[in-house]
Amino acid sequence: MSFTIGLDYGTNSARALIVRTADGREFGSCVVDYPSGHQGVLLDPKDHNVARQNPLDYLHCLEAATRGALAQAASKRGFSAAKVVGIGVDTTGSSPIPVDAKNRALTAQKKWAKNLNAHCWLWKDHTSWREAAKITELAAKHHPEYIAKCGNTYSSEWFWAKIWHCLKVDPAAFAAAHSWVELCDWLPAVLGGVTDPTAIKRGICAAGHKALFCDEWGGLPDKAFLRKLSPKLASLRDRLYSEAHDASVAAGHLCPAWAAKLGLPAGIPIAMGEFDVHYGAIGSGVAEGTLVKVIGTSTCDVGVVSADKPVADIPGICGIVKGAILPGYYGLEAGQSAVGDIFKWWVEVVCGGDDKTHAQFTKEAAALSPAESGLLALDWNNGNRTILVDQRLTGLTLGTTLHTKPAEIYRALIEATAFGARAIIERFRAYGVPIKRVVCAGGIAEKNPMLMQIYADVTGCTMLVAGSSQACALGSAVSAAVLAGAHPDFKTAQAKMTALKPVAYKPQPAARRTYQKLYALYRQLHDSFGGVTPDADLSGVMKQLLTLKEKARA
Amino acid sequence: MSFTIGLDYGTNSARALIVRTADGREFGSCVVDYPSGHQGVLLDPKDHNVARQNPLDYLHCLEAATRGALAQAASKRGFSAAKVVGIGVDTTGSSPIPVDAKNRALTAQKKWAKNLNAHCWLWKDHTSWREAAKITELAAKHHPEYIAKCGNTYSSEWFWAKIWHCLKVDPAAFAAAHSWVELCDWLPAVLGGVTDPTAIKRGICAAGHKALFCDEWGGLPDKAFLRKLSPKLASLRDRLYSEAHDASVAAGHLCPAWAAKLGLPAGIPIAMGEFDVHYGAIGSGVAEGTLVKVIGTSTCDVGVVSADKPVADIPGICGIVKGAILPGYYGLEAGQSAVGDIFKWWVEVVCGGDDKTHAQFTKEAAALSPAESGLLALDWNNGNRTILVDQRLTGLTLGTTLHTKPAEIYRALIEATAFGARAIIERFRAYGVPIKRVVCAGGIAEKNPMLMQIYADVTGCTMLVAGSSQACALGSAVSAAVLAGAHPDFKTAQAKMTALKPVAYKPQPAARRTYQKLYALYRQLHDSFGGVTPDADLSGVMKQLLTLKEKARA
Repeated sequence: MSFTIGLDYGTNSARALIVRTADGREFGSCVVDYPSGHQGVLLDPKDHNVARQNPLDYLHCLEAATRGALAQAASKRGFSAAKVVGIGVDTTGSSPIPVDAKNRALTAQKKWAKNLNAHCWLWKDHTSWREAAKITELAAKHHPEYIAKCGNTYSSEWFWAKIWHCLKVDPAAFAAAHSWVELCDWLPAVLGGVTDPTAIKRGICAAGHKALFCDEWGGLPDKAFLRKLSPKLASLRDRLYSEAHDASVAAGHLCPAWAAKLGLPAGIPIAMGEFDVHYGAIGSGVAEGTLVKVIGTSTCDVGVVSADKPVADIPGICGIVKGAILPGYYGLEAGQSAVGDIFKWWVEVVCGGDDKTHAQFTKEAAALSPAESGLLALDWNNGNRTILVDQRLTGLTLGTTLHTKPAEIYRALIEATAFGARAIIERFRAYGVPIKRVVCAGGIAEKNPMLMQIYADVTGCTMLVAGSSQACALGSAVSAAVLAGAHPDFKTAQAKMTALKPVAYKPQPAARRTYQKLYALYRQLHDSFGGVTPDADLSGVMKQLLTLKEKARA
Repeated sequence: MSFTIGLDYGTNSARALIVRTADGREFGSCVVDYPSGHQGVLLDPKDHNVARQNPLDYLHCLEAATRGALAQAASKRGFSAAKVVGIGVDTTGSSPIPVDAKNRALTAQKKWAKNLNAHCWLWKDHTSWREAAKITELAAKHHPEYIAKCGNTYSSEWFWAKIWHCLKVDPAAFAAAHSWVELCDWLPAVLGGVTDPTAIKRGICAAGHKALFCDEWGGLPDKAFLRKLSPKLASLRDRLYSEAHDASVAAGHLCPAWAAKLGLPAGIPIAMGEFDVHYGAIGSGVAEGTLVKVIGTSTCDVGVVSADKPVADIPGICGIVKGAILPGYYGLEAGQSAVGDIFKWWVEVVCGGDDKTHAQFTKEAAALSPAESGLLALDWNNGNRTILVDQRLTGLTLGTTLHTKPAEIYRALIEATAFGARAIIERFRAYGVPIKRVVCAGGIAEKNPMLMQIYADVTGCTMLVAGSSQACALGSAVSAAVLAGAHPDFKTAQAKMTALKPVAYKPQPAARRTYQKLYALYRQLHDSFGGVTPDADLSGVMKQLLTLKEKARA
């Protein structure tokens, strides 16, 4: 009997999960909140775009969560720490960390301990939106291929934009950093005892999705291009990496120091780090033909297609990276910028409600049939990640009368996110990516049958639910199990270690027919305000409102 | 010292106001709620379009309110009932009443007492929307001039549509009615003791605005046209009227029976009945160049232009009728289908709040500067009366983010109604109707300085406020005073008897500049969803949603 540990680093906390490699059974798990900041995130009251984390928090949680999970597992028959054969790590991203020449976080030094720019730049930090726009512009002009695989738009959430912004606003912090490492690469390197950041085995997942790394053009963007941003970024390239690996390669082996801290056998293999949703997709059973939707505050929609033949660039899909999820496959990533966050906004910010209000609205909304409210909404309260790749879009609700009830708007917002989900599925299919099954993961998928039924009726796809509530950590553990040789390959490991919940939301023909019509209307609004249809382009209304808003607030 | 009484019949109650003719000083007033129905309105739980009233309620209130006002005035020095020299009446409309050959309401008969179709068809009854559409269609084809003066659209709120609908759904009630009389004509006739409905002196106000009456084509629509609706409507024409009068003519003189009931001198003149907002405009000082806005649940925007030369038809303006308000002037009427109702919907229906919430939102909204919320809304929750004349439109809110607060939406809705108000002013001006002053009346104008300032900033007009809170009843009393000879003409009477509040909301240059830009965006949405701009026509989205909604509810 052997076990692996999956470590899942979310936005607010870290989790360790111990599973049996034979069947994925969970033997122990432990969640530890990050000690610093507001729910683990360091904010700047003067700039709502700032979101940082202290890398030392990650190390604290690494030990505490692993020890906690081991303590829980210890009481289960057949388990012992000596039987743990591998570790896998997944994290948020792009969350780059400035490190010194010894691969230590800058915040470990007193001098940098309180400087937010020396912290980890959390995925949802949007301070570098100007830099992102500039990178998009320069790439479109000089190297369109760089951004063709990420929807033709470089995001302010990503690696280069963040580092460039740091260089601009805090050159001292930039200068103090010998290198920058994605959180998902940094933690395996730390566990493996790597003390030279240029020696870290970096994963293709973060490299390909966030840092414009691709073997086709020789790795990271070339120096000539980076020099257009800044000569200092061109120099930094030499202190980053020239290779990036998929999950068939080990990131390293557990070093004695960390083995001692965690109470695990030294030398066990450490899986290549990946982003949470990517290992989450593995933990949910992703395969060619299966789309995994992780539905939370936002969604990530993840799929894979065989790497036997090249895959076309798909406009609006934020990432197409060979090996990013499963070795031997292209990993495809799309997503919606806000889903659960929109419902939360409606119930809590607008209606001043709480969990009970969610439940009450859900009850009332469930009693409505499609189109009964006469409402239609756009799910753009946080912009549109896929398929428009445009953060400068806003929410819209249409069809309100003097009788419109808050629960009707609640349902319209759920439907709007379902229409957004359908747009993503249609975009994948239009470019030959088969979608035969949809597996959903995340709290909303498990707890909101009304939403799941609406998604089925709107998309026409049967909605399945991942068996594990910790799909990300489970995926990390699956990866570690393959690496440790407990299974010959991912397909076998997934078949043994992952499952589905015994529920399937099937499209209902009558609702489906009505939603076909509503979706056509949604697309009319979507295309008009999204600037897709030049003959009825209303995108200027949203953009100009944002400009006037920013002026008014300045 | 002489006095006149103004009687104002609103949707939920009736008011009597006694004023001194010399200066308009109020000596007594009394409000009496209609005893029947929900807040005075008889509804049908199976059809939300139904809104009826029992004419007997009007007679009850006539006596009770007048007696109440007289009792109050009796205690004031210098007053006695013997000094009352005239009575004026204003009412809602179009509110036609089926009467028997003796001018008695059908509901006075046991047989009809409980039949809603035998009641007064209150202005906001919308059961006859199909008939209204058919009248619009037939008029457009055969007599476009009939509807050219009412925005080219005949409304379901109006005379012929309602009577035709009664004929269709309840031929027995239709047959029992010898004639149909507008409430504003019926009450003066009752007071004057008229017992033959064909002998009633009808006012041009209701006739011209609601019954397609115009001297240009010989009064009411001709029989050939009415026969296209139904031969029975053509026959009814003979039992209606062939003349309609402005307020320079007396409707009659107080008959002994009603003089005794009310405790007033018999034989005093009774002013021609007009709609509440028309006499309200007089009570607020309407004159050429002055627009009166009565702002309540909805708005009425009323103006006058000299009848010395003909006035052009103005597309989208719901009524242009010679003599409808002031003798010697064309009366122009426009309006917004919902104003206060939209704010009430937001606060009470959506946010579950009350008066305190209104106050809180007002406070928060007042702290915002124009454009600061990034929001833009369309004020169409109850359709658009002017300038689109389209009930099948709905509300829209755009620009919401995950941070949008309810008070921000509250302000956006106020701004939306201000933009709608500006569209009306611009339409008037575009057709040569001068607007130099805007006088606002109604509770919102008196109590909401933030709204008034926004209206000033959006329209660029200084917003003045009518001096009397009972502008409608005051206008009726003014009309009675002119008729009684207390003043030589309306201009003199208005100058003496009406006033403004000592407040003026002036446009602020900075806000004005921002609102110019926001208004341009509003017009883009307005024209696109209103179907005005064929190259970016999104009106189909709203219409199709309504159709799907009706199907879902059927």
